[in-house]
Parts: sequence; C-alpha cells; structure tokens
Amino acid sequence: MFSLGNEIKLTVFGSSHGPYIGGTVDGLPAGLAIDQEFIQKWLDRRKPGQSLITTPRNEDDKIEIIGGSRKGFTDGSPLAFIFKNKDYIDKHYDDLRDNPRPGHADLTMFYKYGEYRNYEGGGFFSGRMTMPLVAAGAFAMGVLKRYNIKIVTYIKSAGGISIDNEPQEDEDYVYGFSTRMPDREKDSLLYNKILESIKNGDSMGSVISTHIYNVPPGIGEPFFNSVESEISRAMFSIPGLKAIEFGSGFKLGNMYGSEANDEFYAENGKILSRTNNSGGILGGITNGMPVVFNIAMKPTSSIRISQKTVNLKSMEPSEVQVKGRHDPFISFRAVPVIQAMAAFVMLDLIMCRKSL
Amino acid sequence: MFSLGNEIKLTVFGSSHGPYIGGTVDGLPAGLAIDQEFIQKWLDRRKPGQSLITTPRNEDDKIEIIGGSRKGFTDGSPLAFIFKNKDYIDKHYDDLRDNPRPGHADLTMFYKYGEYRNYEGGGFFSGRMTMPLVAAGAFAMGVLKRYNIKIVTYIKSAGGISIDNEPQEDEDYVYGFSTRMPDREKDSLLYNKILESIKNGDSMGSVISTHIYNVPPGIGEPFFNSVESEISRAMFSIPGLKAIEFGSGFKLGNMYGSEANDEFYAENGKILSRTNNSGGILGGITNGMPVVFNIAMKPTSSIRISQKTVNLKSMEPSEVQVKGRHDPFISFRAVPVIQAMAAFVMLDLIMCRKSL
Amino acid sequence: MFSLGNEIKLTVFGSSHGPYIGGTVDGLPAGLAIDQEFIQKWLDRRKPGQSLITTPRNEDDKIEIIGGSRKGFTDGSPLAFIFKNKDYIDKHYDDLRDNPRPGHADLTMFYKYGEYRNYEGGGFFSGRMTMPLVAAGAFAMGVLKRYNIKIVTYIKSAGGISIDNEPQEDEDYVYGFSTRMPDREKDSLLYNKILESIKNGDSMGSVISTHIYNVPPGIGEPFFNSVESEISRAMFSIPGLKAIEFGSGFKLGNMYGSEANDEFYAENGKILSRTNNSGGILGGITNGMPVVFNIAMKPTSSIRISQKTVNLKSMEPSEVQVKGRHDPFISFRAVPVIQAMAAFVMLDLIMCRKSL
Amino acid sequence: MFSLGNEIKLTVFGSSHGPYIGGTVDGLPAGLAIDQEFIQKWLDRRKPGQSLITTPRNEDDKIEIIGGSRKGFTDGSPLAFIFKNKDYIDKHYDDLRDNPRPGHADLTMFYKYGEYRNYEGGGFFSGRMTMPLVAAGAFAMGVLKRYNIKIVTYIKSAGGISIDNEPQEDEDYVYGFSTRMPDREKDSLLYNKILESIKNGDSMGSVISTHIYNVPPGIGEPFFNSVESEISRAMFSIPGLKAIEFGSGFKLGNMYGSEANDEFYAENGKILSRTNNSGGILGGITNGMPVVFNIAMKPTSSIRISQKTVNLKSMEPSEVQVKGRHDPFISFRAVPVIQAMAAFVMLDLIMCRKSL
Repeated sequence: MFSLGNEIKLTVFGSSHGPYIGGTVDGLPAGLAIDQEFIQKWLDRRKPGQSLITTPRNEDDKIEIIGGSRKGFTDGSPLAFIFKNKDYIDKHYDDLRDNPRPGHADLTMFYKYGEYRNYEGGGFFSGRMTMPLVAAGAFAMGVLKRYNIKIVTYIKSAGGISIDNEPQEDEDYVYGFSTRMPDREKDSLLYNKILESIKNGDSMGSVISTHIYNVPPGIGEPFFNSVESEISRAMFSIPGLKAIEFGSGFKLGNMYGSEANDEFYAENGKILSRTNNSGGILGGITNGMPVVFNIAMKPTSSIRISQKTVNLKSMEPSEVQVKGRHDPFISFRAVPVIQAMAAFVMLDLIMCRKSL
Repeated sequence: MFSLGNEIKLTVFGSSHGPYIGGTVDGLPAGLAIDQEFIQKWLDRRKPGQSLITTPRNEDDKIEIIGGSRKGFTDGSPLAFIFKNKDYIDKHYDDLRDNPRPGHADLTMFYKYGEYRNYEGGGFFSGRMTMPLVAAGAFAMGVLKRYNIKIVTYIKSAGGISIDNEPQEDEDYVYGFSTRMPDREKDSLLYNKILESIKNGDSMGSVISTHIYNVPPGIGEPFFNSVESEISRAMFSIPGLKAIEFGSGFKLGNMYGSEANDEFYAENGKILSRTNNSGGILGGITNGMPVVFNIAMKPTSSIRISQKTVNLKSMEPSEVQVKGRHDPFISFRAVPVIQAMAAFVMLDLIMCRKSL
Repeated sequence: MFSLGNEIKLTVFGSSHGPYIGGTVDGLPAGLAIDQEFIQKWLDRRKPGQSLITTPRNEDDKIEIIGGSRKGFTDGSPLAFIFKNKDYIDKHYDDLRDNPRPGHADLTMFYKYGEYRNYEGGGFFSGRMTMPLVAAGAFAMGVLKRYNIKIVTYIKSAGGISIDNEPQEDEDYVYGFSTRMPDREKDSLLYNKILESIKNGDSMGSVISTHIYNVPPGIGEPFFNSVESEISRAMFSIPGLKAIEFGSGFKLGNMYGSEANDEFYAENGKILSRTNNSGGILGGITNGMPVVFNIAMKPTSSIRISQKTVNLKSMEPSEVQVKGRHDPFISFRAVPVIQAMAAFVMLDLIMCRKSL
Repeated sequence: MFSLGNEIKLTVFGSSHGPYIGGTVDGLPAGLAIDQEFIQKWLDRRKPGQSLITTPRNEDDKIEIIGGSRKGFTDGSPLAFIFKNKDYIDKHYDDLRDNPRPGHADLTMFYKYGEYRNYEGGGFFSGRMTMPLVAAGAFAMGVLKRYNIKIVTYIKSAGGISIDNEPQEDEDYVYGFSTRMPDREKDSLLYNKILESIKNGDSMGSVISTHIYNVPPGIGEPFFNSVESEISRAMFSIPGLKAIEFGSGFKLGNMYGSEANDEFYAENGKILSRTNNSGGILGGITNGMPVVFNIAMKPTSSIRISQKTVNLKSMEPSEVQVKGRHDPFISFRAVPVIQAMAAFVMLDLIMCRKSL
C-alpha cells in the first residue's frame, strides 16, 4: 500500500510522467502550524538541477497545499498537497520498455504489472516520489521544534572517501557542502570524484549517517513498532536504499557484551552513556541519547555505460544504455529525504504514546 | 502495538514471568494444513538448554493450539496458541529493578512504564517472546512449501570468525553444527571461543545470514511495503538485532553503478543475473533471484561481569552484575527465529498480491 | 481518520471552502478500467442546482484524475482525483461562527477543534465531501459490472408518503423521477410537498432503500467485518444519516423465529428463499439473495426558520436563521451517494476474500 | 478479520466446540486497573442457564487472564484472556451439517469455507463468541468510571410489548428484571410470553435500547469514524443484530427540519437541548447530551419447529428441526453484550482524540 505511519498516515500518489505527484498526511490534530516556506526550503534541497552533480531535469517542485490547512494551521483533516510535473521527455524511455536496465525496477515492474506497468520515467518507482516524503517530513520537522528535536543527515562515505567525526548539531550545516559531506577537504575530493564518474557515464553510491538529537526517552512501541522497525521500514521505501544499522550496527556482531554495553552515568538529573553503541535505542525504545543510524544507498542504476540485459519480448540477450537525464550521485538529493523521513517517523512515534 | 503483518496479522501476548506467552495469526484462509509436529520441531530449535552454549533455563516450550484449527486445518478464524511458562526464579531479578543493566531494556522500560513496568525476567522484552514468532513462522514455512520456497539461515560471523560461501539449499542443514556456523572447522573454533567467553562471564554477538530460495518474482508492494521494508520491520522486533543489509548492502555505498548493477541473462525462460548485489530485490520487489540479507545481533546485554550503572531511585552511581541464567550466545537460538520470521513475512507478502 | 475500507482504502481530503476537495483509492490492482464519463455521470447526479428542489450553489463538480491512471487503466498506485471549489460566498457564514445551528455540526466542531475549526460552509462536514465518495463508488460500480452486481437506491418514504414495491433491477431507472421516488403519482405528490416545505423555509428527511442484486454468496468477513458492519460503517459517514436496517430490520424485533427465518428452496442449482427478512445476509455473510437495507436521513439542519441557540462567546440565549443556500431535500442528492458507497463496500468485501 | 477498534484493538479467537474461546485487547496504556471480579460480574450476566428463559447449556464461563496484567494493572502489553469450553454435545449437530437451518449461518459458512467449515455448535458464529466482547467491554466500563460515563441497556420492545420511558441512570438496575425490560408489569407479561414461545418451540426477537450518560462532548472522528459508524460497526458483529438507529432514528425520515433540530439552551455553563432527536451526536461527534441508540435483534434462528431447507449434498428439499439446546430469547443475554460493546467503543473513541 502507498501509506506509511501508525498515528499519522502519509499516503503518496501520482507518478513521474503523470500530471501530478502528491500526498496526504492524515491523523494530525488541529492547530499545528504549517510553514509553507520552511517546507519549500527542504523541497528545494532535493530539487534536481542544483549543481553539476545532479540531474539537469528542470522542475520547480513547488508545493501546492490543497487540503487540511486553514489560516496557516492544520484543521484536523488530512494535510494534502500536490506537485505539478512539468519537464518530462517521453522518447528517452521508448527502448527501455522491453530492455530492463540492470539494477532498476524495470524488470520487477514487468513481473508485477505486466502490460499495465507505468514504466515511463520509472512511474511511481521514480525518485520524484520522494517529494511528498520531503513535504510530510519537513512539516514534521516544524512540529518537532517544540521538542527541540534536531535531525542531522550527511554523507559519511562514498567513492572510498569517509569521515568519522560527530556532526554539528545543526540541521542546515551540511547544506553548505557541495557533496553534503561536511568536511571541507573531503568534500572537495569527493566532488571531483563524482565529476569524474559523470565523465565516465557511471554513478556512485554512498553511506549516509543520521543523528537525531534531543529525542525524549521512552519513544518506540513494543513489540513490533520499535524505533528500529519504524525507521527502517520508512527508510527502505526510499529508492536505492539497501542497508541500515543503528549505533555501532554491524560492528556489534563481532563484539563482546562487555564492550558493546554502554555503561550509564548520571549528569544533571539525566542518565547518559559515554559510548553510544546502541544508537540511543534499548529494547526498541529511546533512552535519551542521540538516535544514530547509517544507511547505504546503492549507485543509481541508470548509467550511460552499455550493460547486458534480456529483451522481454524475445527473451534474447540485449544491451541497454541510458540516454535520459539521470542522477550520477543521487545521494546528494537523498540527504534531505532521509532527514525528512526521520522526522516523520519521530513525530509518528511520539504520537503513539498512549494515555487517558 | 503487538501486531505484525498486512494481510495476515501476528499478535503476541504474555510475558516472561506471567502464566503464559502466546500468539494469534489472523487473516488465514480456511483449509491450510497445520502440522503441529513440524511447528514444534522449529520451536525446539530455539529452546533453552540445548547445549553448553545456551541458557540452562528449563522450559519444554510445548505449543498448545487453542483456536483456528479444526481437524488439522485452519478454519478461517485466528490460529491461536499458547505456551505455559514454568521455570522462573523471581529472586534473581530483585536488585535489577532499580539498577538498570547497560545495554538492556531495563532503563527504557522505566521511562516508558514507570512503576507499572513488567520488569521481571525482562517482561515482554524477554527473548521468550520469540516463541510465538517461531510458531507463526514455522506454520508459514509449512504453507510456503507449496511454492517450494526454502529459507536458510546461519551464523556468518562471530568472535572474529567468518565464513563466506553460499550455503546449502537446505532448511535443516545448519542445525547439524553446534554453533549454527555451517563449516566444520570454524564451527569448532567458534564453539571454543563461546565456551571461553562463558568462562569470562561475557557474551558474544554475531552476523547472521539468510537466503530465501525460489521466491516467485513480483512479490513486494510499492510504495511503503517493499520487501526490504517488510523484512527489516519484522527483524527489528527480534530483541538484540541492530543492523540489516540486503544483497551487498553496505558495500554498495562505495561502489560504482557499473559494478553494482547485476547484468541480466536468460536461461530456461527465466531472467537471471550472475551477481546478486541487489539481494534478489529491485524497486522493493523480488526479481526471481534468491532474496539475501544479513543481520547483526548484538551480544546479550546480561553478563556476569560487573558494570557501571545509575540507581533509578537515588540517581547515584551504582554497579550491576547479572546472576540469573542468561544466554552467552543468543544468536544460536536466534537462527530459527530469523528463519521463521522471514517465512512469515514472505507468506504475508505473497498474500498481498491483489487480483479480482 | 479520513480513510475507509479494508483491502481498498478511500481517503478523502479538502473542505467546502478550501481550494479543492479530493480523494485517493489505494489497494487497487493494476489493469482495472477507469471510465471517466461513467464516473462523471454519477457525480452529476449528486450535483447541486439540478432542479428547484436542490440548492442553487453553482458548481460544475468535474472530476480531475491526477494519479493512479495510465491509458485508461489503474496502474497499481492510488487512484487520485480532485474537484475544484468555485462558487462559495463567505459572508453567509459570518454569524454562524458563534451561534451554532441546531442539528448541525457547528457546535461539535467547536468542541472538537476550538478556534481552529474549519467552519466556513461546514468545512469538512459539508455535503460537498460526498463528491469523492461518489467518485470512488462509481469507479467501484464499473468494476462490479464483471460480477453483474446491480445496485438500486431510491426514496422509499418522505413527508408521510411511502412506497413499498420491489424496485426495478436497473441502476438508472430512479433518476427518471423528479424526487427519486420511483412511482409516478407519489413522485409528483412528494415533489409538491417539498416545494411547499421550501416556501416555508423548512427541510425534509427521508427513508432511502437500497437493493443490491447478484451479490455472490460468501461475501463478508467474520468476526468484525460482517456485511452489516461494513455497510453501516460506510453509510454513517454520510452526513445526516441516523438509522439503518437490513432486511426486515426493526420489524424483526417483534417477530417469532418461525416467521422471521427465511425458508430455503432450490432452483437451477441455487439455494433461494421466498421471503428475504434477513436482507440477503446470514451470519454477516451474503447468502446469494439480494442485499437489502433502508437508511433514514434526517432533514437538513440548515433552515430559514429562526431557531433558538446559545452564543458560544457569551453563553447567552441567541437565535439563528440560515441565509446561505442550502438543500431543502438533501435526500435527492444522497441517493447516488448511498448507491456509490454501497458499491465501494461491496468491492472492498469481494477483495477481502482470501486465497493462496 | 477478527479485530475491532482503532486505538485499542480487540481480537477474538476460538470457537464454540474448540477447547477455548478467548480474546486480546492491544493498545492499552500501562497502569489501568483490572478488576477481575467486576469483569466476571458482567460475564455472569450473559451466562447461559440463568433462568428458564435462557439455554440450559452448563458453562461456568470463568475468565482466565493470561497476559497484559501485572499486580492488578495493565502493563502496556495486550490484555489476554481465555474461557474454557466444557459442556458441548456434538451429536446434536450431526444432521445440521448438510441441512442448513433457515436464518442461521449454516448456509453461508458452507459458501465461505466449504468442507473446512467449523460448523459444530455454530463454530465461531456461535453466541459464545460474545464472551470476549463482554470481557473487553466490562474492562472498558471500569476505565470509563474515571469519566463518570454510565451505560444503560434494556429491552425496549418484544413480543408486541413496549416501554417508552427514559431509563434510570444506573448500569445495574435492569438486571433486577427477569426479562431485562425495566417495568414491573410489562416484565411479567413479557416473561410469560417467552415461556409460551418456548413451549411452542419458537423464539422471539426484541428491540434493545442503550443510553450512554456523561459522554464528554467532542468524541468521534471525522470523516469515517463518526460515533454512529463506530457504534454500528461494533454492534453488527453481535450475532442476530439487524438494525440500529440513533436518537429518533427512522422517525427522522418523515420529519421536518424545524421539528427534528434540537434547539439549544445553556445551563450551568453547558449547552443542552430539551429534545434529543440527534441521540447526542451531531456531525458524528458527541454534543454532551446522552448518546442514545436502539437496535433490533432478530429471533434466534434455531427453533424446535420443523422448517424447510435444502440438502447441500443432494440439493433436494429437506427439513430441519433443531434438537440441541438453544436460546428462545437470546436478547436476555444480549443486553450485557451490547452494554459492554458500547463501553469498548466509547473508550476507543476517547483514546482517538489526538494531541501533542
């Protein structure tokens, strides 16, 4: 289904080459401020055409709010919004129909929908579908300000270049870096690596890190709505995401309990830990330390290099070479999507707390 | 909430030191065979007391089916089952109440439930809650036989010891190894490492790999119920699980598209790929290749080594040392849980396919 | 929440005096025909301004499909559609803000949303919100043609005038009558009665009957998704509906079992009954006889006659007299809404049948 | 599905002739008192064998709480409970298998489940399935005491005998009457009428009225979770219920707006109305007046009088005459079921109110 969330439900609709893409967020109480400029700022951060390392597709991606808003506040009905699709060129996609791109959903769309598949521009598998995710998440970020929750997302590793420092507690800081890797020197190294990959007609993946600060302790619902379950489920709907780890993640698999356990100490009436191997989550519930997770995003599957495939009609070997505009380093634009989705999930989990 | 699934819903109830633990599976059509012996076989594989490397807690963990079954077949009402708790010793837990164990849910239970927290034996955060997961999943494995789907789960890495070969396509094979690492030599090495860790009062984590064979292509639901979303959401409800990756997972973050994309070829009317970096999933939907994922399980947080904590009443520094029986290598018993949950998710996703 | 349905989910959004009203239907398989003209025909049947007995509000209520459709067929993503609001006059509503109309949601909106209430034109309590219900239901009616299911809805009683004959098995027949009471003589009587009530500034209620023909037996899900539960839940979201009965309904309360039970006989390999006191539903599941239900719709609460109320600010006695355009006999326009919603529920229930 | 509720979910399982019937209530916050004696009191009120006018089936219907409870309070996990089935006599049901009783679910079970149908004793269509409804609802009644909400349910009409007075605001009062019709004289008349009907081997229906006092205003969720939608959906899962009306219900269909609208006045800072045609609900939301609804329950379909049916194997005309123990006036035992379900729905709706 095209819906995400427990207490608040995000539903997305539309497709890359249809007239609109949009979404609704149901379950919001009345009286929450809707700051359209703030939402648009986050949408602009995922917009195509921002620099040489993003696709040149020309879209202004302006949000139009069509429901749930009255005088700048939620009214208790679903917040509804749409984005008009403008710049799409169908002919680029003609020969993709029957020659599925390796690594792309072309093949699985065919399996699932057969002749009815909405394949033009990737249909609803397109990265454009992340616009409503950003809109819903940016709205949530606005609401989370009342808890002082801050979400920081950045490129941690790509093209063999990595950073390992704790990020600044600033939601905007990373957007001052041309690759979203918040280290002046490595940012520049990575930028050049991406340009080179573009020249080669290739694409690159990345590891993206997210730190959520000031999360109230006690968030997350046993048994099946742990913070990890909810975040991972949301993240894996972002196209291209293939891995997630919380805290020290895969490293924990080769650790001893005596190393892995984060010992507690008290400070200013709060219980803290000096290490954060658990990523701020114990038993699926937040413990007051920052929630930390890394995801891996695979390289964009659409590349200009010719690749082997199979023609769906003839079942004969074939080749495919992508000519349309595509993102050589989609991770650049995925950063605000992940950040926004983390906000959406946090708001949903906060609203899951029950009382009478 | 304590429910998982879309078309079929698993609900779990009970707790470690209550009278029963149980579960229901709602949404099953009538007429599916219920092979109680087969289900019990899988339950026995997660039972405590199987060897020196598991907790000696003495439970027989026999399933009692109390609803949804008539003459060995589902009847269209929820399959309901219970397990009686027998061997629990409350006094072990007395001083844990106010001295939360590092790495354990003790602290977050306190934040979430305050004085009402069901902390004895970990309450419903206990590993015993995975019994209904195995029951539901083993039932699903039985149903999946009609699709010839086979699920193989094994320890891939622990204590610095790793294996990297493709496993045998046999759901039972791994249970012939004393650590569930299916390599004679490394199994023995790991076994000794675990015994040593037990002697030290410590515990160990692991990386656990799962391969699902013969999955029909076209399984998985856009936009928010991708195979990755559904599997990860289910897995992260298993206590101690902190990371998941599909196919080449985190490695994809530092790869180029030209390496990462799995090129297609045709064989016997099927479209296959020689590499499987995508883990059998493209666009969130199965492509007919094996679905492959790794998870990381942290070491059991309960260890006999003394650790620093904070007393919840005094907010003063404190120490905690676990005396009750605990699992030094819980991964051993997690293997059938992961395998079963993978089956449950696959059955649910297969049932999500819509038609008229 | 603003969502209805189990296997298919209708979500509605927007409000009377916002820019748009719209809806999405999620869960539809790909490949279902979308006949926009057919849908518009049903929308036109609920449009204002059709005759002297409906509100003169000037809206064209043209549906714009903005998602889920590709070349005239569903594509597996949510069918999404919007309606532009055009003709609204805010000044009519100024003094209603603090002087709640008796019988109207003005007061309960205030209780629920306080200063954030979207009261202009009734906000999302407006009858205009039934547009997406008709759109979704008319789409469902199109799909149900493959089962030969026919839904007939008509005014059974109003203003003391009643009919009691079995209706024609024709979905369109009733629209040839100026009041939707399918009896030439009584239609005319009722029409005059309504005109008189308009002259008096008053409004009228009705009892509306629905017969669903050719429903396959075995539809409806125990325990909580009986046909009665699903139909009633959907119907009671239509503004103004206050009662529902299936088959002989309230009469059954004073009957004996020997009278009430519909005896069975066989004909052409089908099991039928000569009476249909059960309204085609036994144990919450269809038995192959027509599904029959009556609903009562209260008179529109907005009338031109002055009525006593309480001023919300002063808590002093006050009076309110509605000057805006309102529907003196909203039942006229409710007929296609009920018919469409019945179709939506039937399609949803048909899709609930499980198999593997 | 076998689940009801939005914020709290009741799931029922088991069947008439299986080992147990049970239920779970998920979504409850920790710290709510569980008064087992209070719950048992309500269960005893629906127990068979209470008097000459109920079935003599000998069950003690004692609740066993098996999850979600710790030291008399909810612990945040699902409240789980079971009832052991004791006294069932299979042979009574032998010839019913292929000769469906008119008015009963025998036929529709066959359509839906074929050879896998759980028909013995009505399977999960049995009135025994209302035990978990009463348990969940009685628990809810306990919680609602903090709001001072009082729910009164009574027989309003049966066998041609009716009462029309406003009931006492006392949840227990009606249980002092042998037929649950709270009028000394009419109670006695009705009692004799029922005895006579038993002698004739027949059964009787009824109209049952419910008044909910002290409901806070503002309860109920637009658009699809109106108070009417939620109550009706819950009520129609009670076997035998065929009609529901709120406030003046069907009478509203033949009224004018000027009569139907309940005019407002203020008293002690509250807005009230002298009439209550709307049954305390405007726009699907409570307005502070008592919530009032009537339901119609059909006569028990199982009667000792021989009735015409069709043999499912031969498709030839057949006769069926019920010999097992059945309830001649099931409404007697339905009273606490309706009362309890009303409580469950009110608690669920109260918990649906959103805030941050």
